[in-house]
Order: sequence, then structure tokens, then C-alpha cells
Amino acid sequence: MFDSEFDLIARYFSHLGASRSDVLLGVGDDCALLRPPPGMDLALSTDTLVAGCHFFADVDPEALGHKCLAVNLSDLAAMGATPAWASLALSLPAVDHAWLQGFAAGFGRLAEQAGIALVGGDTTRGPLSISIQVQGLLPAGQGLRRSGAQAEDLICVSGRLGDAALALHQLQQGLEPEPALRARLERPSPRLQLGQRLLGLAHACIDISDGLLADLGHICRASGLAAELQLEALPCAPELLASGDWSLPLSGGDDYELCFTLPAEQAAQLPQLAAELGLPLSPIGRILAGEGVACRLADGRLYQPKQRGFDHFHD
Amino acid sequence: MFDSEFDLIARYFSHLGASRSDVLLGVGDDCALLRPPPGMDLALSTDTLVAGCHFFADVDPEALGHKCLAVNLSDLAAMGATPAWASLALSLPAVDHAWLQGFAAGFGRLAEQAGIALVGGDTTRGPLSISIQVQGLLPAGQGLRRSGAQAEDLICVSGRLGDAALALHQLQQGLEPEPALRARLERPSPRLQLGQRLLGLAHACIDISDGLLADLGHICRASGLAAELQLEALPCAPELLASGDWSLPLSGGDDYELCFTLPAEQAAQLPQLAAELGLPLSPIGRILAGEGVACRLADGRLYQPKQRGFDHFHD
Repeated sequence: MFDSEFDLIARYFSHLGASRSDVLLGVGDDCALLRPPPGMDLALSTDTLVAGCHFFADVDPEALGHKCLAVNLSDLAAMGATPAWASLALSLPAVDHAWLQGFAAGFGRLAEQAGIALVGGDTTRGPLSISIQVQGLLPAGQGLRRSGAQAEDLICVSGRLGDAALALHQLQQGLEPEPALRARLERPSPRLQLGQRLLGLAHACIDISDGLLADLGHICRASGLAAELQLEALPCAPELLASGDWSLPLSGGDDYELCFTLPAEQAAQLPQLAAELGLPLSPIGRILAGEGVACRLADGRLYQPKQRGFDHFHD
Repeated sequence: MFDSEFDLIARYFSHLGASRSDVLLGVGDDCALLRPPPGMDLALSTDTLVAGCHFFADVDPEALGHKCLAVNLSDLAAMGATPAWASLALSLPAVDHAWLQGFAAGFGRLAEQAGIALVGGDTTRGPLSISIQVQGLLPAGQGLRRSGAQAEDLICVSGRLGDAALALHQLQQGLEPEPALRARLERPSPRLQLGQRLLGLAHACIDISDGLLADLGHICRASGLAAELQLEALPCAPELLASGDWSLPLSGGDDYELCFTLPAEQAAQLPQLAAELGLPLSPIGRILAGEGVACRLADGRLYQPKQRGFDHFHD
């Protein structure tokens, strides 16, 4: 029975993440039993990462364990939710204890930091694929949505855009990215604190997983409005700024920063919030009447983007 | 954009299942927003089905949509929970609209019957694999667990055991199973009503997915007790009873019936409950002090089982 499915789950995944008093029963029965606190809504998200599509099959398993939880936590951050519970469905071609140990370590470390408990797991034999579902808590009725943007809102982003895509580009060229840049691709930091601070402040919020243009486009469509970006205001690496090629910050994807819209009168709060969080927060444009996302250069000309984000069915 | 990931999800998976007032925001934002009713616990389970491991890649997509939700609902049934919300992570090698339509129809029909709403989805390109996470509601503190069995409890099962394994065996031999038998393999019925009726009545409960011996073994281990089965009491197809080979009802798996333990003084309620549910409920043995599951024949001899259930890493 050493390598059986049951032992696998028990050995690596039964006690990962935070210990929480609202988990009445964790991994190991037909279901986990959870007690949601009164007066709170749940935010729920699910994301799958498939080897060869979302990551290289030989990626460091510890980084992979971190990243596949991080991309899910990033969705909670975008709603302003506080992480609570996660479940993990893992398909593996074979049992590899060193790999499982690394994966569980990466997953577990981030889960503990984020205060989320792993409460459900399923391990099956199959092509390497990881599907995670996370749930977070929100004061009732407070969740940040894509649909709340209003005309004249300021569009803001956290952190830097295009770093992950630049690191991936360098790896694909056979180059070794700087460690800090590589970490932006392999160990993204979900902006959980920022999301929670935006509750009651931002009108709309989304996380940037598919690229700024695609994700800001979701806010515009859901809100029935348009956006205009000032390209030179985009926070990105000096080599990207210098190149004049905006494709990576606009469409590279995998950034896991937050893009949010603020009523203009709240703009003055940005520097203080950025300082408290130790995270750059940059105003990059405005919400307008109309539809679509326009990109304007400093000289006033419109810029025509080359790609429009990442689509899993259009490689 | 016709075949893009976003359109795929929107077209097939945005409005599946029951419409529920506790779903504040369904598929289409970073997270779904849900409002758990006060005084209820959540039961949460996740199960993955991988092509070539859990099903034939060419199986009828409508049956597959039904089955992959059914196996998850069966875990809710085992806790006595009432289904509420589901999320779906689907990996597909290519976009096939006829397949997606069939899959969504099978999933959606069962979801509506069960009163569960699909609130989250992720569609990725990859080898065919389906990962579903379900949540149900339970009166606080009432969830049925594996660990509650007590010595002298009566062991009971619903429905018939071994049907799914018999149908699979016939298909593997190139035979066409009777439609009713084939449906037991491809369209199992999660025993949700039974689970809910067992709240406050049964001491322990589990669903039979890996075979009776393996799953009753989980109850015994979790409860620190042993079990003795009367083989001739097992409810199974006449051809299995006649064969004297107990491997399919004991270890075939894929039955999705419930195995539960009842205080002996409640045994008299079984026939009435079975009649109300229109579902056979059979007493098949007793919980005893000790450990392990023993199988006794009518003449008093012990029977030595050949296999001990289904393990995804031991094909």
C-alpha cells in the first residue's frame, strides 16, 4: 500500500497550510466540513495549470507548488477576499516522492503565509495537471467586481507589468533571467493585502493574468464603458520602457498584479496606500464612455497593440 | 475570438444547474460570490476523472457529464449534505462543440435535478480531464463522518453492489451490457435523499466508490473498530450471486451506493425508509471490536477476498 493513492494524499497533503478553527474536518473523509463565519460572503475561484501549456514539465516542483496556489489566490485578491480554504486535484504520470515533497513544500509555505488551509484533495494518475479551488471570506455584499467601473474613474495597477513575460521570453531564448525577474514568472506574489484594502475604495478590480489589455477589457465590457491608457505611465522594467515595444506589459500575461478603478477624488490616497503596502501603485489611465481600450503615447498618438492577450486555445 | 477560452466557458458553462438565491455572482468574474445561509456548515469535496484512467476517451459526452458530477454529489450524499454549488475545471485537447454540448447537457440535467448551481469554471487545453468541486449545506455539527461507527452497529448498504463492475467487465469482453446495467456504470445516481435522511440516524457513512471492502475498511480504521460481513446478504445481481465469486460486489468499485452503520435498535426503521425512498436498504453485517473487515459465508466459513479495491496508482 506504500504508494497507494490514499497514502499519497495522507503523506503530502493532509496538513498543508494554515490551521483554522473554521475547519471542522479536513482532508480524509468523503468531504471536508467547514463553518463559515456569520455575516460573511464566500468568494470562490478555480484555476488549472497543465504541463506543456502553462508550465514546463521540468520546472522546479517547489516553484510550481507556489505558483499554482498563487494564481488562485490572485483571484481572491481581485475580489478583496481573505483566503480561507483550498482544495487540490493533482494528476501525476507516476509517483515521484522528491517531486511531491517539493511541490507540497512550495504550496504549503505560501498557504501558510496566506492563512489558507488545504481541506480537500484528490490524486489521480494522468498527464501532469494541477487544478486548485480556493475560497475566501468577504464582509457581506462588499466583494469587488469587474462591473463596477464608472466614467472618469482612474485606472491603476500594482507592481510592474511585463516582468513575467520578459523572463519567459529570455528563457525561451536560452538566456538565464536575473533571479528577481525569474521569480516574477515562477513565484508571483498574490496581492491579497491590496485587494482587502481596496474594499469600499475601488469601483472595480481584476487580476492581470491574461495581460493588461485583455483584463482591463473585461472591466470595460462588464461595466459598459471604455478605457484610455497612457502608455508611458505603465510601470515596467527599464529595458521594456527603453525598447518602445509595449507588447509585453500590455499583453504578456502572468503578471498577477491587480488592475483597479478608483473614483478620481480618491487618487490622493494612492501614495499613502502604496507606502503602507510597500507596493507601487500607478495611475495609468481613465475610464470613459464608449467601448474598448485605447492606448495613447505621450505625444498624443494612438498606439496599435500587436497581440490581445493570452488565449489557451490559440497558441 | 469564436473558439476562445472565454467564449467556451460563456457558451456552455455559464448557466448550468439550478438557479439559487444564495449565488450573488456566478461564472464570469475572478470569483463567484456566494452567501452561505446562517447556521449551516459546508461540506466540500473534489474529484477528478482522467480519460484512459477513469473513463474511455470515446465515452458518450452526455453520460460523462452526468457521471463526473454524480461521483462528486455522491460524496455530499455520504455526509448527508444538500447540494449547493459546483465548480468545474475542464482540460480539452481541442475545441469540439458537439462534445461540449453533450457534456454540458449531461452535467446540467443532473445539476438541475440535484439543485446545485455551477458557479465557477476554468477551461484549458490539455489531455482530456475533468476536475469538479462541489459544496453542500448541512445543519451545523450534523455531518455524517466515517469515524462515528460503534461496536454492535448494523452495517447497511443501499441499492445493489457490483453492477458497475459487471457492466465494465462485459464491455471489456466486447459484450453489450443490458441498458439498465450499463446505466449503473455510466449514469450512477448519487444517493442524496438517503444521505439527508440518515442525519441523526446513522453513526457513520461513506460512499462506495472504491469497492465495499476498501470503503468499509475506511469506516473501520477511522472508527478504530472491525466489521464482519455476511456475504449472502450482499445485494447484487442474480448472476453474481449464482457465480459464488464475490470479487465484483466486494471490490469492483464505481457503485456510488452508501454504506452506513446504524445503532441496532434503529434496524426496524430500515424497511420503512427503503419504501419511502424507493431504494433497497440491506443490512449486511455488524461492527465489532478489533480491526479489519471479515467476510463470512452462510455456512460460517471465512471467505478470503481476492482484491482489495481500486487504486489509481496500481492498475
